[in-house]
Amino acid sequence: MEEIAADPSHPRYASLLMRHRLEAAAKRGMLADSAMIAHGRGEAFDYLLGERTTASARTAAGEAMHRLSRAKRPVLSLNGNVAALAADDMLRLAARLSCPVEINIFYRTPERMTAILGYIEERKKALHLDVLVLGDAPDATIPGLKGPRAACHKEGILDSDVILVPLEDGDRCKALVAMGKTVIVIDLNPLSRSAQQASITVVDELSRALSTMLSWNEEDVRPAYDHQATLNDAHKAMLEGLNNA
Amino acid sequence: MEEIAADPSHPRYASLLMRHRLEAAAKRGMLADSAMIAHGRGEAFDYLLGERTTASARTAAGEAMHRLSRAKRPVLSLNGNVAALAADDMLRLAARLSCPVEINIFYRTPERMTAILGYIEERKKALHLDVLVLGDAPDATIPGLKGPRAACHKEGILDSDVILVPLEDGDRCKALVAMGKTVIVIDLNPLSRSAQQASITVVDELSRALSTMLSWNEEDVRPAYDHQATLNDAHKAMLEGLNNA
Repeated sequence: MEEIAADPSHPRYASLLMRHRLEAAAKRGMLADSAMIAHGRGEAFDYLLGERTTASARTAAGEAMHRLSRAKRPVLSLNGNVAALAADDMLRLAARLSCPVEINIFYRTPERMTAILGYIEERKKALHLDVLVLGDAPDATIPGLKGPRAACHKEGILDSDVILVPLEDGDRCKALVAMGKTVIVIDLNPLSRSAQQASITVVDELSRALSTMLSWNEEDVRPAYDHQATLNDAHKAMLEGLNNA
Repeated sequence: MEEIAADPSHPRYASLLMRHRLEAAAKRGMLADSAMIAHGRGEAFDYLLGERTTASARTAAGEAMHRLSRAKRPVLSLNGNVAALAADDMLRLAARLSCPVEINIFYRTPERMTAILGYIEERKKALHLDVLVLGDAPDATIPGLKGPRAACHKEGILDSDVILVPLEDGDRCKALVAMGKTVIVIDLNPLSRSAQQASITVVDELSRALSTMLSWNEEDVRPAYDHQATLNDAHKAMLEGLNNA
């Protein structure tokens, strides 16, 4: 797999590269047991989507950047899969928005938190980026969630007004929306609870979505964002993908 | 996850049970790196299928049993995921057909072979079944395949006339068909190369497909099996599933 992933002309290069990143992260102890299965589900939806960024996903990504750049206290939340697949782009986005990233994982264990925090600090140094990395000492809780999955930082997730939570769990997405925040989700399944409940959903593969967001300009045209229409459009694109398969 | 999987009334019981089996198998070293991702892709297709056995999948399962029970030298091939998810039913099926099972994995390493063989022997003892388990000393090769993935037993896969290879790789499926065998595949993706190339494809979740096969009777009505119509039907069921979602 590493051999193939080293050749960018291979038709499955992007997909194999993502798998390779997940395998490397698994070896570092960054991932929960369910991480690979969740990724495989995403792969199937991306296959139906034609492994491309649709026009409505681009609009959603632009709207997400518009809201994040105008937020008073934006924050970017990273779980194990997000750190594995897109640590660099998440850090670049945080640097551009001058906002913190917060490591916030669903199945929280000290070992996984240490592994992810270590990796993010490593990437931050390698990229020479000045970004505040939160997650090591949570001092607040998200109302409506029980146990370790409620833990967060006051100066990060708790007090944020706009939050990017890629690949988020449905319950946590719902709890963040209930706090009155603008919640931006990146999710390949337009039917998932997270995709449905978020304020803005980018239905696209994570690295493509972040690449679109990083190439956004303040001056870009800003088509109206309609949440349900965006989800319906992604659903329709998948139906067409399956129909033409 | 274990807690939920222990309650059969939970709506996601079957799905969580399968994940639990994979996690246990991973801990025993039975699985390749890509095993969980492949399972996740299957979950997405099963979701579109409505997590049910369609009429055409039932017909295909019946045809598979008809062919296996009339074969001169039937054999059941098991890879890591099949062993993890359905070792017991594969052994029960082999006992019923009085045929061997052969452990045959795509990414062959001595460690994984030992782990899988050990597990299958353990289950065979627990079930008190008299089944020949092959795989530990391959003495033949499948023509058209390179390296360790070509290895097989002469008295198992090589000389078989009808072979059940659930969740099989596309290249290997093709090589087996090229040998003139009747190749029976169980695969949730009707568009996969294995599903397309097989002689008979049961488009269903593995444990449901095996359960249908085990409940088959010699006297059951036997509707005509049309390979392309079976795949088209599964495809249509998934389109309807996505359409109604």
